[in-house]
Amino acid sequence: MITCDKLLSRAQCHSLGAVLARMKGFQCLTPIDEAWQTLFRAVNMRKLKVIAVPLSSALNRVLAEDIVAQEDLPRFNKSAVDGYALRAQDSEEASQFKPKLFKITDGEVIRGHTKQIWTGNPLPEGANAVVMLEDTRRVENQIEVWATLRPFENVSKKGEDVAKGETAIKAGTRLKPHHLGLLNALGWAQVQVYAKPKVAIMATGNELVELGVKLQANQIFESNRTVLSALCSELGSEPLDFGIVKDDVEEISEKIRSALKEADVVITTGGTSTGASDFVPEAVNRIGKPGVVVHGIAMRPAMPTALAAVDGKPVLILSGNPVAAMIGFEVFARPLISRLLGLRREEPRPWINAKTTRKMAAVLGRKTFIRVRVVEREGELFAEPVSAKGSGLISTMTKANGYVVVPENCEGLGEGETVTVFLFDSIEAH
Amino acid sequence: MITCDKLLSRAQCHSLGAVLARMKGFQCLTPIDEAWQTLFRAVNMRKLKVIAVPLSSALNRVLAEDIVAQEDLPRFNKSAVDGYALRAQDSEEASQFKPKLFKITDGEVIRGHTKQIWTGNPLPEGANAVVMLEDTRRVENQIEVWATLRPFENVSKKGEDVAKGETAIKAGTRLKPHHLGLLNALGWAQVQVYAKPKVAIMATGNELVELGVKLQANQIFESNRTVLSALCSELGSEPLDFGIVKDDVEEISEKIRSALKEADVVITTGGTSTGASDFVPEAVNRIGKPGVVVHGIAMRPAMPTALAAVDGKPVLILSGNPVAAMIGFEVFARPLISRLLGLRREEPRPWINAKTTRKMAAVLGRKTFIRVRVVEREGELFAEPVSAKGSGLISTMTKANGYVVVPENCEGLGEGETVTVFLFDSIEAH
Repeated sequence: MITCDKLLSRAQCHSLGAVLARMKGFQCLTPIDEAWQTLFRAVNMRKLKVIAVPLSSALNRVLAEDIVAQEDLPRFNKSAVDGYALRAQDSEEASQFKPKLFKITDGEVIRGHTKQIWTGNPLPEGANAVVMLEDTRRVENQIEVWATLRPFENVSKKGEDVAKGETAIKAGTRLKPHHLGLLNALGWAQVQVYAKPKVAIMATGNELVELGVKLQANQIFESNRTVLSALCSELGSEPLDFGIVKDDVEEISEKIRSALKEADVVITTGGTSTGASDFVPEAVNRIGKPGVVVHGIAMRPAMPTALAAVDGKPVLILSGNPVAAMIGFEVFARPLISRLLGLRREEPRPWINAKTTRKMAAVLGRKTFIRVRVVEREGELFAEPVSAKGSGLISTMTKANGYVVVPENCEGLGEGETVTVFLFDSIEAH
Repeated sequence: MITCDKLLSRAQCHSLGAVLARMKGFQCLTPIDEAWQTLFRAVNMRKLKVIAVPLSSALNRVLAEDIVAQEDLPRFNKSAVDGYALRAQDSEEASQFKPKLFKITDGEVIRGHTKQIWTGNPLPEGANAVVMLEDTRRVENQIEVWATLRPFENVSKKGEDVAKGETAIKAGTRLKPHHLGLLNALGWAQVQVYAKPKVAIMATGNELVELGVKLQANQIFESNRTVLSALCSELGSEPLDFGIVKDDVEEISEKIRSALKEADVVITTGGTSTGASDFVPEAVNRIGKPGVVVHGIAMRPAMPTALAAVDGKPVLILSGNPVAAMIGFEVFARPLISRLLGLRREEPRPWINAKTTRKMAAVLGRKTFIRVRVVEREGELFAEPVSAKGSGLISTMTKANGYVVVPENCEGLGEGETVTVFLFDSIEAH
């Protein structure tokens, strides 16, 4: 079921054999790309329901229809500047040194006449251009024009913004403020968007307790659901809290079964090491086919991540380690939820290039995600690794604002190298 | 009241005099930095109310308290890996070629004994290190250990993540998913955050109608409030809709007066050209002191922007032109609201460097904001100007995903130049 692919070639796999063979329980680690493809083949990416929402609730929703303009925008020729409307041909040869005089009118603009106009006003009857205020001077009851205008100069022509029948915004677009503005200008009071994908989230582990409960010895507050729920909300999906489950295959099966009834995706954390603590993969395999399709990924952290599907619905089995759970979400849940959202193209995290301040070690044969803090000093960006060890340290995520991805065939990064950093928080200027 | 500053020196101002003098109504344009400082001196930046919210509602809120750890995190020494807990000193000189044998125990780890342990489990009594599963082999009832361990190797030490008494997160931090995770791990069930600043938004103009109404000749749908409300929501402030107001100084005064009672900031659009259509600045000046402190900014678009304050509360008078309104918001409302939010540091938009695909013209003496579409081609980023003209064309904002800022002393950008682009939407890969 799990095979090495081109990225980690058979030869490479053999040369890494000494390491890999020792990873008990994992015959071989699956490269991320292959793991993702395997998952994708196993799940049935149903399109979500389409619902109508008013514009005021449409921010960050994903458009489910092409927006085709029903009218020209603008609906009429209008002035793009403050100035005077006139017939372009009447301004011929006018210049600062050879101004032309125009009579002021309040009605139709006929030959030699002009009418004051403000930005956005409809062009008056007869006029075909607007001279800017600063290219004119009032002389008693007339206007001196200092510029020669081309027809439709300083005019927003009917349909110039969006022509009737044109596709203004494509289905699959995430609606940002400027999209809402265009929809509004085109007269759309409500739009069809995709329903939010529902993501069931549960944590497994006997040592975990809910916030607010008094901790006993060896207990810890379960925090992965909080982080994963927030990440789901940020993406525009709807997290469903399925609580904490004990390390018991039967109990976990039951909980995942009920989650699969309500949700489009199920995410679990914990209980995914190999051997004795491998509760969740076993629980999923009891529920239905195909069950776990990948277990053990050639990445660090989040190596014990498992990917599964039951009757076409994805189940992502993330590590219980807080940092590994976040990275696992980033690598697998984020692209999966993006597809479920109906987005027409991926939304990569913002990224920048920065210079490393220190050497950063990686692991050959595994894609390594190194948390870094990017700071700006005198206009230059620097990436400082936050922690070489301690992938279980949740504070490393709050000290970092991004991560660097070191490919499988690279032992690490040198000092002063330029690297690409994917940002999950803003950059501090020093 | 409006003077030229260092940026646009007196000498420069003189040399640009021919242009500036012709801008009727604006004696001189104020550079952005000076305009912002002038506004800031005129307003009284009150701190907002502090409220307690549960963690589940705290995403993107701004923390109003320093979070000081009440306990060590982790609260006990725990294993950072799956493996076997032992006494480091017992593993001395162990290697793959010279393994050492350990007896398995289920209780205290005494000399020569080891106990199986999973990531996150507390270190058992007596042990001070954990050997990774892959550095061991089970031989009948004993464990072969292939590595020499240092004390606390593969152990997350008590307090290593956050020590008791340490400030884990500072007041003024925008709470992202990873911050919520840390708060949760530290046992915070609710946090103190700043109340959302209230931003009153109104549009002025006789030609404007509400969505859903049937358009008469020369009318258009008012769309600026939709865009500005969405921008306010994105920032984490609370937009209040004050509707559409007719071009009437008295009516506008009345509306702004009532907005000032409810809101922390008032934003208007339209009615801010000079001369006959200068309704809003006049209306604000009627309400109270100091009124308009800057009118006419050395920028393009959004030149007619005016900044005002009444009894310490800011009133931002933006252009009615949709693109100029958005740029005006970006330049003035965004930093103002960020301060009101209580953020300890600015949150610049994500930015990247890209190569221009064409020449882009700018205006000497004015900071020019050029909308561009950044695309990725074979790993390189290119910035394509979206529209040289047509700052009134709202579709230019949906075609663009960022903007370039050309300084006052620059006539424009050449083809193939590397420029910084501030992104307001994601980058498309080609």
